[in-house]
Amino acid sequence: MSLMPNVLEVVRRYIRESAKPGETLIDATMGNGNDTLFLAQLTGETGRVIAYDVQAQAVEKTRQRLEEEGMLDRVELRLESHVEMGQLAGPVAAVMFNLGYLPGGDEALSTQAETTVQAIEAGLTLLRPGGMMTIVIYVGHQAGVVEKEAVEAYCEQLDLGQYFVLKYQYLNQKNQAPFVLVIEKR
Amino acid sequence: MSLMPNVLEVVRRYIRESAKPGETLIDATMGNGNDTLFLAQLTGETGRVIAYDVQAQAVEKTRQRLEEEGMLDRVELRLESHVEMGQLAGPVAAVMFNLGYLPGGDEALSTQAETTVQAIEAGLTLLRPGGMMTIVIYVGHQAGVVEKEAVEAYCEQLDLGQYFVLKYQYLNQKNQAPFVLVIEKR
Repeated sequence: MSLMPNVLEVVRRYIRESAKPGETLIDATMGNGNDTLFLAQLTGETGRVIAYDVQAQAVEKTRQRLEEEGMLDRVELRLESHVEMGQLAGPVAAVMFNLGYLPGGDEALSTQAETTVQAIEAGLTLLRPGGMMTIVIYVGHQAGVVEKEAVEAYCEQLDLGQYFVLKYQYLNQKNQAPFVLVIEKR
Repeated sequence: MSLMPNVLEVVRRYIRESAKPGETLIDATMGNGNDTLFLAQLTGETGRVIAYDVQAQAVEKTRQRLEEEGMLDRVELRLESHVEMGQLAGPVAAVMFNLGYLPGGDEALSTQAETTVQAIEAGLTLLRPGGMMTIVIYVGHQAGVVEKEAVEAYCEQLDLGQYFVLKYQYLNQKNQAPFVLVIEKR
């Protein structure tokens, strides 16, 4: 197992180490359903995954993938903004964000700084102690730079008594390479 | 085992995962000998540790600690600058840097940007494939900020085909908190 995995694998390792089968897990950015499927496998038959996206295309694609894998029954796919996470009751073991826009989709429909930070704030209140939030951040598109600044500024001021905030970044990459924030609720 | 260990433990985990007993390991900044002792334990009776420091006080303290632990025979303590690493022949499995000044010592005798970068460059050429260099960076003293800029700039331009460069940093800390660079030779 490589000591320097790509960032998508990095966040999965943190989630795997923390979440236990049967727990409630959240995919804040459904996209093509990669993380939704990962979380559904992880929580198993007795668990629950709640996944958000504002694009019907994303929800439909994810629904198909989960149906093919026979895991649709443990997943709630919500066609709404991830800020609606604020309506949920905890505890949840994990919240995954993969920011930016839908691969192959419309760049103008990327996640946006203000709502992303709201959703992060909502997600953190749901986490159980030891629970993990992971955020993959892309700065290769215009809204991404603004979003990165807002998300980092928000995370930097989180109370160390309540959260660990790790920034994990490969330095010698091209400028567009994503990096990762991992937040552990203490 | 915590998923968010302090940075001194973070670098040890990378070194432990990579170095095998019997290999040659380098402590580029002896200081109080903490890392020298760690490396001596790791490489075992058949291995070798080479440790550098420009301060006689550091070398003497480290010598005492290793003698108490019965591990002095596998260690070479060198009272000279870590840029002298350039004189060694590889391969080595690990090189550890813990930048800044000797705890309890003279802040004016801290490591300096130019020689630190030279030593990093020398150390990287010694690493075997899969070998690890770890660098703990402190910005709480004046020379530390300059050194941080120089070290990051050097590491950012390393060829991705030859090295992975990871920056691992806790964001919601006080300003003086150290962070870590981990470089893996591919």
